[in-house]
Amino acid sequence: MVKGEWIKPGAIVIDCGINHVPGAWQDICERSVIFTDCPCSLSFSDIEISRSCIPKPIDQVAREIGLLPDELELYGQTKAKVHLSALKRLKNQPDGKYVVVTGITPTPLGEGKSTTTIGLVQALGAHLHQNVFACVRQPSQGPTFGIKGGAAGGGYSQVVPMEEFNLHLTGDIHAITAANNLVAAALDTRIFHEQTQNDQALYNRLVPSVNGVRKFSEIQIRRLQKLGINKTDPAALTKEEVNLFVRLDIDPATITWQRVLDTNDRFLRKITIGQSPTEGGFSRVAQFDITVSSEIMAVLALSDGLDDMKKRLGRMVVASNKRGEPVTTDDLGVTGALAVLMKDAVKPNLMQTLEGTPVFVHAGPFANIAHGNSSVLADKVALKLVGKEGFVVTEAGFGADIGMEKFFNIKCRYSDLRPNVVVLVATVRALKMHGGGPTVSAGVPLPKEYTEENLQLLAKGCSNLSKQIQNARLFGVPVVVAVNAFKTDTKAELALVVQLAKEAGAFDAVECTHWAEGGKGAVALARAVQRASQTPSNFRFLYNVELPVIDKIRIIAQQIYGASDIELLPEAQEKVAVYTKQGFGNLPICMAKTHLSLSHDPEQKGAPTGFILPIRDIRASVGAGFLYPLVGKMSTMPGLPTRPSFYDIDLDTTSGEVNGLF
Amino acid sequence: MVKGEWIKPGAIVIDCGINHVPGAWQDICERSVIFTDCPCSLSFSDIEISRSCIPKPIDQVAREIGLLPDELELYGQTKAKVHLSALKRLKNQPDGKYVVVTGITPTPLGEGKSTTTIGLVQALGAHLHQNVFACVRQPSQGPTFGIKGGAAGGGYSQVVPMEEFNLHLTGDIHAITAANNLVAAALDTRIFHEQTQNDQALYNRLVPSVNGVRKFSEIQIRRLQKLGINKTDPAALTKEEVNLFVRLDIDPATITWQRVLDTNDRFLRKITIGQSPTEGGFSRVAQFDITVSSEIMAVLALSDGLDDMKKRLGRMVVASNKRGEPVTTDDLGVTGALAVLMKDAVKPNLMQTLEGTPVFVHAGPFANIAHGNSSVLADKVALKLVGKEGFVVTEAGFGADIGMEKFFNIKCRYSDLRPNVVVLVATVRALKMHGGGPTVSAGVPLPKEYTEENLQLLAKGCSNLSKQIQNARLFGVPVVVAVNAFKTDTKAELALVVQLAKEAGAFDAVECTHWAEGGKGAVALARAVQRASQTPSNFRFLYNVELPVIDKIRIIAQQIYGASDIELLPEAQEKVAVYTKQGFGNLPICMAKTHLSLSHDPEQKGAPTGFILPIRDIRASVGAGFLYPLVGKMSTMPGLPTRPSFYDIDLDTTSGEVNGLF
Repeated sequence: MVKGEWIKPGAIVIDCGINHVPGAWQDICERSVIFTDCPCSLSFSDIEISRSCIPKPIDQVAREIGLLPDELELYGQTKAKVHLSALKRLKNQPDGKYVVVTGITPTPLGEGKSTTTIGLVQALGAHLHQNVFACVRQPSQGPTFGIKGGAAGGGYSQVVPMEEFNLHLTGDIHAITAANNLVAAALDTRIFHEQTQNDQALYNRLVPSVNGVRKFSEIQIRRLQKLGINKTDPAALTKEEVNLFVRLDIDPATITWQRVLDTNDRFLRKITIGQSPTEGGFSRVAQFDITVSSEIMAVLALSDGLDDMKKRLGRMVVASNKRGEPVTTDDLGVTGALAVLMKDAVKPNLMQTLEGTPVFVHAGPFANIAHGNSSVLADKVALKLVGKEGFVVTEAGFGADIGMEKFFNIKCRYSDLRPNVVVLVATVRALKMHGGGPTVSAGVPLPKEYTEENLQLLAKGCSNLSKQIQNARLFGVPVVVAVNAFKTDTKAELALVVQLAKEAGAFDAVECTHWAEGGKGAVALARAVQRASQTPSNFRFLYNVELPVIDKIRIIAQQIYGASDIELLPEAQEKVAVYTKQGFGNLPICMAKTHLSLSHDPEQKGAPTGFILPIRDIRASVGAGFLYPLVGKMSTMPGLPTRPSFYDIDLDTTSGEVNGLF
Repeated sequence: MVKGEWIKPGAIVIDCGINHVPGAWQDICERSVIFTDCPCSLSFSDIEISRSCIPKPIDQVAREIGLLPDELELYGQTKAKVHLSALKRLKNQPDGKYVVVTGITPTPLGEGKSTTTIGLVQALGAHLHQNVFACVRQPSQGPTFGIKGGAAGGGYSQVVPMEEFNLHLTGDIHAITAANNLVAAALDTRIFHEQTQNDQALYNRLVPSVNGVRKFSEIQIRRLQKLGINKTDPAALTKEEVNLFVRLDIDPATITWQRVLDTNDRFLRKITIGQSPTEGGFSRVAQFDITVSSEIMAVLALSDGLDDMKKRLGRMVVASNKRGEPVTTDDLGVTGALAVLMKDAVKPNLMQTLEGTPVFVHAGPFANIAHGNSSVLADKVALKLVGKEGFVVTEAGFGADIGMEKFFNIKCRYSDLRPNVVVLVATVRALKMHGGGPTVSAGVPLPKEYTEENLQLLAKGCSNLSKQIQNARLFGVPVVVAVNAFKTDTKAELALVVQLAKEAGAFDAVECTHWAEGGKGAVALARAVQRASQTPSNFRFLYNVELPVIDKIRIIAQQIYGASDIELLPEAQEKVAVYTKQGFGNLPICMAKTHLSLSHDPEQKGAPTGFILPIRDIRASVGAGFLYPLVGKMSTMPGLPTRPSFYDIDLDTTSGEVNGLF
C-alpha cells in the first residue's frame, strides 16, 4: 500500500495509495508521520519512511565524498566498509570542524539525540551544501528486540536502510562477541589444564615437537621476555623458568573477564559454570554482560589504527595471579587470534541519511555502563574527508553528564581531536519531567502535563538544562541548544526553553523540527552551529590523569553531577589499592552511572545537589584504557519486558520487507 | 618473502625469493608444499598458498556462471551473497548432475574430504571444461581456533581466500547465534514473568493499549487460533481464554532449547542460570551448545526458501507445557524476529577455488552431533546454474555412516534432489589404522607403520572401505573411490586400495594427487565421476519415515553401522513415547554418533559387528524436521586443548595479512 519516491533531496513522498497530495508536508504524532493535507490521514512508521526512500548505491556515496574504489569494501548495495588506508592517503589534509551532539538528562523514551544528529547533517549537507559527515554508534540487538527499538534516528531524519542499520550491519558486534568469548574460553580452560597437569606435561603440550623441531611461537617469546627470561631455545629453560612460563597461576577470585552476548538475557546475570563432570569440579560463579558493554567494544571505539588495536587487545587484563600481578590476554596466547577476529571490524561502516548525506556507523558502547561514543577512527577518517570547511557531527550517548563527559575526558584524550561545538538536545517533555511532572514510561500514554501547555513545570525543569549547559562549558567549548519540538509543544513553551538556555550560557538555542521535516527542519540549528564553530574554542580536560583515582572520581562527581562528595564501598576501596599498585592508577575514569538522573538515583530529577555518590566497585579496562567505577546498582545485562518489541517484528517472505522495527 | 602469481588455471607459482624455478612442480609433506626442484626447499603452508593466488573479483565469477548483477550482493571483493530470486528465474532450467563426496571412517586428522571436493571441481572445471560448482559447509570458529583448524581444503585444492572462508564469512553463523539466544532469553524471561504476574497483569502487558487502541499482533492471533479461540477483539476474551492465552505454562523440566556460542567453551557444558537476586530465585540447570549443532543451523541447511525457513523457525519446539503439549517458538512470539535475523543468512555465499571455479559456502552443521550437510538452497541454485550437463559436487561430513546416511535420509528427503554419484574418499593412512595400526593423534608424529609400506595392515583395514562402499550402495547410487595419495604411500599400497575397492563393488577407484597438484591431480577422478554419472542411478531411501521411531533407529544401526541390535536407555524410551504422542514420530532420524568408528565406540576400528548400539537420549528438532538420538556419550560443546591453534594465529598489522591459520 505504501510506496515512495525521491523527489528532491530533503523531501520524500510517501504515496498513501488513496489520495496522493504532492508537496503536502507532514505533521508529527508519536513515532509516525501523517500527511496533514491528505484526507486519508494515514500514519507512517519509521520503517515505512525508511523504505520509501531508495538509497543511492553506496559506491556512489563513496565517490561523492572522495573515496577511491580500492578504499571501499561493499556489503551489498547500501553498506560498505572503508579501508584505513584512506586515513594514510589523506594525512596531510586539514581536519574539518568537529561537533558533538549530547543532551539533557532524558526520559526513558529518549529525547531525539540520534535524530538531531541526523537532522543536523541533513541540514548542513543537503540544504546548506557543506561537506558533512555523521558519525554514530551501531546499536545493540538487545534493545532492538527488547524495549527501546533501534537507533537509526526517526521520522524524516534517519540512517537508511534502517533495518540494515539496526540488525547485523557488517557483523562488527558479532566479531566482538566471538573475540570476547574466545578469551573467556581460553581463560577457564587454561586454569583447568594448569590444575590437572604437572609442569613438564604442560610444557610438552605448550611447546610441542613438530616434525622433530621444538620452538616457541612469537607470543610465547613475548611472555618469556615479560618474565625476564631472554631465551629462545625451549631446551635451555631451567626447571624454575619452565614453571614460571607454564603457570599463569590465575587466582579465580580475581577474574574480571566476563562472557558476553548481544541479547537481553537476564538469566545470565549470575550463573555457575563448569558443572559438567568433564570439568572435574572446577566450577565457579560467573556472568554474561551485553556485548556492547565489553572491553573489546571499547577497544574498537578507542583504537586509532590496526596496530594500536592489536596492542590494546593484547594488554587487556583478565585477572590477577596468586602473587597479585595482572594476567593479560597476551599471557593467554590469544592476542593474534583476537586481532584476526577484529581485522574487519576496525574499518568504519559507510551508510547514508534519508537525504543522501554520508554516515559512518562504527562501534557502539553503551553510554551508562561503558564509554558511550562511536569510534575514534570513524571521526578521524570523516574529518579528513570533509576537509577544512566541512563538518563532522558525532553523537555522545545519553545526557551530557554521561556520554559527553566521557567523550571529552576519554575519547578526545586518546584521539587528540578537539571539538569545536557542543550541540545539546532538549525537549519540553523531558524538561517538564525535571520540573516535577509525572513519571514517563515506555508503553504508557503520556499524562496531560506533557500534552498541554505548562510553563511553570517547564521553567522549573530547566534547572537540568542549565546544569548540562554548564557541564559542557566546563570543557571550554561553545554550546548550541537544539530544542527538539514535538507536535504538542506550544510556541510559548518552545520560546521559554530558548530564552532560558541562552540565559544559562548557551551560545545559541534554536527550535528544530527535523523529525517531521528532515534536514529542512534543522536549518536554523545548522546555521547556529556554523556560527558557533567560528568562535574560538578553548578546550580543556576536566582532570589530570596523573591525579589519584579517588580525586579523579570526586572531580567528576562534584563538578559534573553536583554531588557534595563520594563514598567508596569496601570493594571499591580495595580495587583502588590493587589497580594503583598494579600501575593502572593513571588511567582516565569511565563512570557507570544511571542516565536517568544527574545523581546515582534515577528518581532524582532536575539538578540535584548535596548528595553523596556511592561507588560500589571499580573495574579496570586496561586495554581500552580506563578505570570503570560502578555507581550504585548498574546492571551490565538488560532484560526483556513481558511484551518485547519482537512481537511486532516480522518478515514479509514474498517481498522480503522487514516490518515492525522502530 | 613469499609472493605468488597466477600463470595458468591449475598452476600457481610461489616465488621462494631465493631461486625461483618456473615450471617446477610441487611435492607434499604434512600440510606444506616444497618445490622439489628448487634448492631452497622452502615449504609453504595452506595460507601461504591461498595468499599466493590473486582471486578473480567475485562479480566476475558471478558473471561467468550466468548470475545477473541484481542477483548478487557483494561482501568485499572475494565473497558475495546470491539472491534466491535466481532460483525463481532459472526454475525451468534442468538440473545438473549431483555428486556427493563422503569418506571412510577417518582418523582424527581427517582424510581430505573437503580437499577432494575442491580438487574434483577444479579438475572438472578448470581442466575438463565442464560447468561445475562445489557446495561446502561454512566451518565453525570453534575448531578453527581450537585443534582442527579450518576447512577450506588444503594444499593446491582450496577455497580462497581461506582466511575469509574460515573466519566470519558473511556472518551467517553469527546470525544463528543471535537468533538462537533470542529464543532462549524469550523462553526463560517468559517463565519468569508468568511466575511473577497474575493473568490480568500479563494480559495488560501482552496486549497493551497504544494511543487508546488495544489489538493483538499477528503472532498473537496465530496463538489464539492454535488454542481454538477465533476472536480478534482483545476485549472479547473470557477469563478462561485470557488464562489460556497468557500462560504458556512451560514445565521447566522439559526445556530442550539450549543457548549456543560458536566457541569451544567447555565450561559452559553444564551451568546454573538465573542466580542473580533480580531473577527472584528462579534458577535452573542449563547448558551452551556449539552454534553449529543448533536447530537453527539445521533449519538454515534444510530450508528450501525464505517462506519455508520462516515456517520451520516458527514450529521449533522448545519445551512442553504442564499438560504435556509442545510449546513452540511461535508461542513465544518470536518467529518474525527470527526470520528477520536470518533473512540474509538464507542466501548462499559465493566464493571460488584456487583455480577460479565457483563455490557455494552455505550452512555448516556438525556431522556427528547434527546432520552434517551444507544447504539445500546452495545445491538447488548450483544445480540450475551448471545446467543439464554440468556437475554440482557437495560434501557430506565425516564417514559415509554419518554424513552420507544423513545426506540421503534427511537432506535428499527434504530437497527432493536425487544424487547421481557417490565419491568415497579413502587414505592409506586411515585404512592402516583400521587394520590395527597404532593410534593416530593430532600433534603427535605418525608411527612408522604409516610412513613405511605395510600391505598387510592395509589389506586388513580395507574392511572399513568395503563396508562404507556397501553403505553407499544401499541407496542405489554408483560409488567412485578416491584414494587421496600421500607422499609416503607406495605404488603397491595405492594399487591395493584401488583393487580392493573395485572388488567391494565400487564403480571405479582412482588415485588422486590434488593436494599437491590441484585440479590436475584429480583429472582421473573427474573422468571416473563423469562415467559413473552416465550409469542409471536407482536411488532409494533406507527407511520409510512412517515406521515407528525405534524401527527407524534399528534399521540405521543394523544396516549402516553393523550393529546386531539397539538398546534404548530409560530417558530415550521416555522420549520415544513423548514425541510419538506429540505427533513427531514420523520425522526422519539424525543419529548423534562418534565419527571415529562405525560403532558407538571410537576405539572400534575396521568394520565391527555384533555390538548393541546404546541410545542414551533422544531430542526433537521439529522445525528442522528430525529426531536426534544420542548414541553413547556425545558432547555438544567441544573444548580447547592445552595449546589451541590460536597460539600460532597472528595478524601482520602492516600488510594486514593473516598468519598461522591452517
